[in-house]
Amino acid sequence: MTRKTARPKVYLAGPEVFLRNAVEVGAAKVEICARHGLDGKFPLDTALKLDGLTPAEQAYAIARANEVLMDQCDAAIANLTPFRGPGMDPGTAYEIGFMRSRGKPVFGYSNHHLPLFDRVRKFSAKPLTHRPGSEPTMAFEDADRLGIEQFGLAENLMIVSAINDSGGTIVMGRTKRRDRYTDLVAFEECVRKASEMLESKR
Amino acid sequence: MTRKTARPKVYLAGPEVFLRNAVEVGAAKVEICARHGLDGKFPLDTALKLDGLTPAEQAYAIARANEVLMDQCDAAIANLTPFRGPGMDPGTAYEIGFMRSRGKPVFGYSNHHLPLFDRVRKFSAKPLTHRPGSEPTMAFEDADRLGIEQFGLAENLMIVSAINDSGGTIVMGRTKRRDRYTDLVAFEECVRKASEMLESKR
Repeated sequence: MTRKTARPKVYLAGPEVFLRNAVEVGAAKVEICARHGLDGKFPLDTALKLDGLTPAEQAYAIARANEVLMDQCDAAIANLTPFRGPGMDPGTAYEIGFMRSRGKPVFGYSNHHLPLFDRVRKFSAKPLTHRPGSEPTMAFEDADRLGIEQFGLAENLMIVSAINDSGGTIVMGRTKRRDRYTDLVAFEECVRKASEMLESKR
Repeated sequence: MTRKTARPKVYLAGPEVFLRNAVEVGAAKVEICARHGLDGKFPLDTALKLDGLTPAEQAYAIARANEVLMDQCDAAIANLTPFRGPGMDPGTAYEIGFMRSRGKPVFGYSNHHLPLFDRVRKFSAKPLTHRPGSEPTMAFEDADRLGIEQFGLAENLMIVSAINDSGGTIVMGRTKRRDRYTDLVAFEECVRKASEMLESKR
């Protein structure tokens, strides 16, 4: 006798919602989730009626729908790929904080292979400068004289710690620049790990 | 007869923790809060013992301490000033999500006067390109072919919506580039608004 149980629902956070073919990329992510026994929920899938709303009203309606969707999900898989600079998309970072605060597991993946410190070095127009008398974990500054975390982590320590503490993990991939927001190899590896973890908890 | 009540505790989130004189800037923020009847809590003020820990262990200890501090606070004031690109610091975005998810009011301020769309245009090395057949709220793309939100908001819609829905508000300031992370004029205006709102709830 088999018992049919609902698959764990997973919120798919990431800046690919800004792609021209976002709906297609979202469908591909949901399909990968399904192959691994997860019910992926892509933010653009909510059936929102935005007609007649001002741009600001549209934005708030989208945000509220995303929060409702997060609350319907058991976990999140967040795309940490660098977004308009060395760091991740702030909207996705917000969603990690939201899910973490709800006590739900969060997983992360990135299509850039380098940890945060090396990304800041690589993305900086000017060379980093040494900060005299500093802790070894913040020995260099950028052109704005902001110190750069050097903990060997994939992202800002709040993000990485939240993911680890929540029971999740981070997968770092590597793609060509033009495939950075569409390649799903690291995503699939992350889905595999999330599926294992979420199944073991049932 | 007077009754002495505890002042509302406010978590002071922002990338100024990366400044060389972060402790001093934090003290100035706490002092401004005190003048407006708020008990400001700056992340670096937690008395953490990091000796003998590996860099990763230090990072996790800092993150956990920040989360404990957030849970002790009644509200947050977040610095949305652009950080290594047109967008805000992902660590601060995380903290906004965390506090929002806890149902606490979040306020924001920025030392850059332009809304997100105009900042992306200004910070982009290459001109933005038009996205054919697109919604007017995402009519332009950056060099990575990511659409740029055009809702007239200060930041990503999740951030702005969360702040507004929580009962908070956003103050946009304008400073010289070199004062971007230290100027506290917009911060003080934000503290004033937060104080009014938090007092009215007591």
